[in-house]
Amino acid sequence: MAPNVEGSEEALLPDLPRGPLHAYRARASFSWKELALFWEGEDMLRLKKSIFSALESDPLFARPGRGLPTEQLRELTFLRCRRVLQLDLLRMDALLQSPLQLLALVTCLGMYDWSLAAKAFLHAFIFGCFALTELSHGSNTKAVRTTAHYDPAAEEFVIHSPDFEAAKFWVGNMGKTATHAVVFAQLYVPGGQCHGLHPFLVQIRDPKTLLPMPGVMVGDIGEKLGQNGLDNGFAMFHKVRIPRQDLLNRTGDVTPEGTYVTRFKDSRQRFGASLGGLSAGRVCIVGMSVANLKLAVCIALRFSATRRQFGPADGEEVPVLEYQLQQWRLLPYLAAAYALDHFSKSLFLDLVALQRGLHKDDQSARQAELGREIHALASAGKPLASWTAQRGIQECREACGGHGYLAMNRLGDLRNDNDPNCTYEGDNHVLLQQTSTYLLGLLARGGPGGAHCESPLKSVDFLAAYPALLGRRFAVASLQDCLDSAVPLAAYEWLVCYLLRESHQKLAQEKRAGSSDFDARNNSQAYCCRSLALAFLELTVVRRFHQHTHQPGVPPPLRAVLRRLSALYGLWSLSQHTALLYRGGYFSGERAGKMLEDAILELCSQLKDDAVALVDVIAPPDFVLDSPIGRADGELYRNLWGAVLQQRRVLERPSWWPEFSNKPAPGSLSSKL
Amino acid sequence: MAPNVEGSEEALLPDLPRGPLHAYRARASFSWKELALFWEGEDMLRLKKSIFSALESDPLFARPGRGLPTEQLRELTFLRCRRVLQLDLLRMDALLQSPLQLLALVTCLGMYDWSLAAKAFLHAFIFGCFALTELSHGSNTKAVRTTAHYDPAAEEFVIHSPDFEAAKFWVGNMGKTATHAVVFAQLYVPGGQCHGLHPFLVQIRDPKTLLPMPGVMVGDIGEKLGQNGLDNGFAMFHKVRIPRQDLLNRTGDVTPEGTYVTRFKDSRQRFGASLGGLSAGRVCIVGMSVANLKLAVCIALRFSATRRQFGPADGEEVPVLEYQLQQWRLLPYLAAAYALDHFSKSLFLDLVALQRGLHKDDQSARQAELGREIHALASAGKPLASWTAQRGIQECREACGGHGYLAMNRLGDLRNDNDPNCTYEGDNHVLLQQTSTYLLGLLARGGPGGAHCESPLKSVDFLAAYPALLGRRFAVASLQDCLDSAVPLAAYEWLVCYLLRESHQKLAQEKRAGSSDFDARNNSQAYCCRSLALAFLELTVVRRFHQHTHQPGVPPPLRAVLRRLSALYGLWSLSQHTALLYRGGYFSGERAGKMLEDAILELCSQLKDDAVALVDVIAPPDFVLDSPIGRADGELYRNLWGAVLQQRRVLERPSWWPEFSNKPAPGSLSSKL
Repeated sequence: MAPNVEGSEEALLPDLPRGPLHAYRARASFSWKELALFWEGEDMLRLKKSIFSALESDPLFARPGRGLPTEQLRELTFLRCRRVLQLDLLRMDALLQSPLQLLALVTCLGMYDWSLAAKAFLHAFIFGCFALTELSHGSNTKAVRTTAHYDPAAEEFVIHSPDFEAAKFWVGNMGKTATHAVVFAQLYVPGGQCHGLHPFLVQIRDPKTLLPMPGVMVGDIGEKLGQNGLDNGFAMFHKVRIPRQDLLNRTGDVTPEGTYVTRFKDSRQRFGASLGGLSAGRVCIVGMSVANLKLAVCIALRFSATRRQFGPADGEEVPVLEYQLQQWRLLPYLAAAYALDHFSKSLFLDLVALQRGLHKDDQSARQAELGREIHALASAGKPLASWTAQRGIQECREACGGHGYLAMNRLGDLRNDNDPNCTYEGDNHVLLQQTSTYLLGLLARGGPGGAHCESPLKSVDFLAAYPALLGRRFAVASLQDCLDSAVPLAAYEWLVCYLLRESHQKLAQEKRAGSSDFDARNNSQAYCCRSLALAFLELTVVRRFHQHTHQPGVPPPLRAVLRRLSALYGLWSLSQHTALLYRGGYFSGERAGKMLEDAILELCSQLKDDAVALVDVIAPPDFVLDSPIGRADGELYRNLWGAVLQQRRVLERPSWWPEFSNKPAPGSLSSKL
Repeated sequence: MAPNVEGSEEALLPDLPRGPLHAYRARASFSWKELALFWEGEDMLRLKKSIFSALESDPLFARPGRGLPTEQLRELTFLRCRRVLQLDLLRMDALLQSPLQLLALVTCLGMYDWSLAAKAFLHAFIFGCFALTELSHGSNTKAVRTTAHYDPAAEEFVIHSPDFEAAKFWVGNMGKTATHAVVFAQLYVPGGQCHGLHPFLVQIRDPKTLLPMPGVMVGDIGEKLGQNGLDNGFAMFHKVRIPRQDLLNRTGDVTPEGTYVTRFKDSRQRFGASLGGLSAGRVCIVGMSVANLKLAVCIALRFSATRRQFGPADGEEVPVLEYQLQQWRLLPYLAAAYALDHFSKSLFLDLVALQRGLHKDDQSARQAELGREIHALASAGKPLASWTAQRGIQECREACGGHGYLAMNRLGDLRNDNDPNCTYEGDNHVLLQQTSTYLLGLLARGGPGGAHCESPLKSVDFLAAYPALLGRRFAVASLQDCLDSAVPLAAYEWLVCYLLRESHQKLAQEKRAGSSDFDARNNSQAYCCRSLALAFLELTVVRRFHQHTHQPGVPPPLRAVLRRLSALYGLWSLSQHTALLYRGGYFSGERAGKMLEDAILELCSQLKDDAVALVDVIAPPDFVLDSPIGRADGELYRNLWGAVLQQRRVLERPSWWPEFSNKPAPGSLSSKL
């Protein structure tokens, strides 16, 4: 190991403070610094450290922002955003060399504050925003109603909102600060033909005064459940004229005379070309969700290792992490944080390859196939990651008891800030249909079971053995043999084939019964297509993590702990589907189901002494984690008590104390009833 | 139907406004007014109406309180609390006649605002609070460290906090306003003997000035995830002296000379006597959780009936409630709201019977058995209800898409305010152990399978057929036969027996392997005892709702819809346990599992046209529901748009706009890195 990672504060990986967490750290089976180097690489550790240090050393980023009124919170976030842009934390040249650094920057800023991260990325190039969603339409983007009529006399487009239901709504940065918006509108040419949704650059505010431009009614939609540093807004356009050149013409353009021109044969193909862009947002959200899950498990596991409650009749109270139930509640989410972190990074690199092909105008069949595969992985990856984080954060909140409900410990902010990951860039349930449609499409194209079931990333190659795979059965001889991610991997391959057949049969049955395509699809989601998409993504995550932890490059001292994480994530995920494993005959008898449970509990027990060190690897500095019960020194109560006493006017009587002497006389107004 | 329930605004059940929800209301299979009368009874409807009207007609209760800084929110809640006490909404005489009215008052106030409800009930008699939990101890109350030493010379107790870890913490009303606290402390008599935890009345603030009393350090713990109108506080006591008489001596007392006297033989028995008190809080939380779930499903289902998105290729967009997936996500929670509402009310009446026995000093074996049974039902009822509400609210939030994430639509407040129901009055996971211990105790006492397995409320009587019940198998001939709550009822009886056996065997196996009692119990929670307790409560809820909906008193026009709700709740709950049904042999073959799924989807489809009317029965007035997307007129977008424009300074530029002209020059500070 390089010497610069040890020792002093200035080191890449400074030693952690000694304290109540030391007992667990001393029992860890591996060196957390060695795992950090393997997991992130030295360059990435250096980048993260520089970002975190830049924030921590600047008083503008001093905690807290929590508890400020919305107006002040938005001002503070704006000022911080400006500083982030001034700091130029990530140079474009570095980005092109190592695109993963972009993902690291997003998640580092997000770990500090998601409102800031969102604002900074939306503002990175112009002080702008993307206005697609309307008050009455979100998922069904084709039904968006804002219009852009071309006027050849003036060589201008006229942007117009027909009524308030067509107001742009939910637009990040639009509420208070954006001066320009990319507005998606239905493009009409002279003669009245509509060419569908296109993006237009529209100035909405004067950058000197921040007053709205003529014809634009723009405002703030108000408080949200979270991310309140970000100003989401609405806008209505009353016949706002913009130059012809402000149609963003990547997919289609209009000549000065008013003729629509496009390099795509039809609107379906044009839509297909934009899939890569859709995937990018979803892949980012996978990483954002993982960052939230990491923060939550760091807080909950450090709390659990230091909070003592109950104990043997004649002994000391024991850390709650020693309870099997607490391990079973939390450790699978720790394993999920690692498994999904690896998936997030690997999918991001796949996306970069796709984007490189797009920039080179690669028209090959492989490039098109890669686009479809990444679209399928991102469309179910976002639901899987955002829901896992949502449930994990909630479990962490509850596992910290009352102290988890105290705002300063941050689990509430994490839950509230993670929540929209389930909704924006495509509602999770709607997105899952994209993935199941992709898989069912392989069947229709004769793929599964045929010789040509291959995809560029190999995520569907196992389907070449469909339907023979359906004959596979659970055949694990002992509990010991079950503690390996090869076990859930094999089970998931069977499960995806089973759900593919079930979904296919359900669709066929619906159609035989006379349902339209629309109804047949809608009536096949619950229990079939939805489960298919999720199981396929879980399989992909399990497979990639299995391969990563079983590759020869893993340093020997890290092999055991990483393989345990991989097995735990795989078996725990799989255990959600035990009913189907039995129903379809993959499992039979009581033993199989019990072995799965016993294996999960055994892995929890094997990992509990490593849990604190595993958390040390993924935890940001205390300043960024910002949770008194989750600090690296483990001084749970001192930190909490200190933070409570630091609050404003904590010991003062309330300013409205004179109201109190005007005591209520119970029932004095009861005649009013 | 009585004429006074019809017609004008002043009627008990005024007609609902016509609007976009009319189409669904017109398709309902029953009259919502008839169901409201059957479900609540005329007296209860009248009480609720009078409470809601009192709030709505008083400007002090005008919405919103949301978005206020914490200090102002607490002031407003205090002023409202004072007004509630002045209004004397519930007279003691009425309460004694019909105790259910107390539950109705709590839930009516809570539907308006839980901070207010909590504050009002804590303040109902004195301006007080209950100080049990400490910074370092919650669930393990026996480890509480505050002391009360008796000084016979002065005839006083000396209340003392040994250090900050023993500070009272989380105490509702203590942060800003309570003048008195019931402080739980370890009672020491001269000579040094400790007699365990006892409650003492301690004055903590001067009621004229609200300044702390000498020796008392009291303050506010700060912002929480929700319920921020309520001021939770902390307190440390430095040798605070109180008169001997301020020991609250229901279970034990100290003579002037310093001798401890109690009517209980040992501390275990004394602890048992307080079980009734513990149950009361938990039973209330069941009702509170149900109220939250009702509000959430009202909002989400009215939204779903009016929000249109996508549709057949050549047709109009359809309400999202028409999608099977949306039905499957929401309608089981509607059924759960009804099932748990009935359970909540019936358990509350059981509790009233128990309390009456306590007041009459009933020493019978039946009274003791009733106490144990209610303790078991309340200890798992609170987890079941609070978790069902938590998950239901989250599902509702997501089912409303982005608009569900807007604070004004209230789903965030519901989630945040419901969340502590999982933690206070006993952590859910800890409480479930009480229930499983009760059931396993029946086995140990030779109950199940013996002639004497009976309980006052009959919730465990079916165990008389244990273990023969384990031979029962799923034998439902057709989908039609499956649409009845008798089906899940029979399955649950088998399931509870199965889990009882599994838990018993697991404990025995642990002990054979040499585990202590403490370890054996801890290692039997996940998958065994925890599931046992939840399944037993689900069975109880299903049984009570089945009986209620199948009783002869149900008006014939309501029978079909109520039985569908009962079947849906039972089957949907049961479907969480399908893996165990297969594993234990109750289910075999693919058909059973599929039939369960098909039955759930069929019931969703049968109920979707009744959903809006079912919501009308349980929805409070719009003023109380306080959600633009959930208003009774169904004018989704008009209400939302109107509420957005009503917000303060919605169209104004931010006050800090001059900061904006000081535009960031990207990278201008990058040399700092």
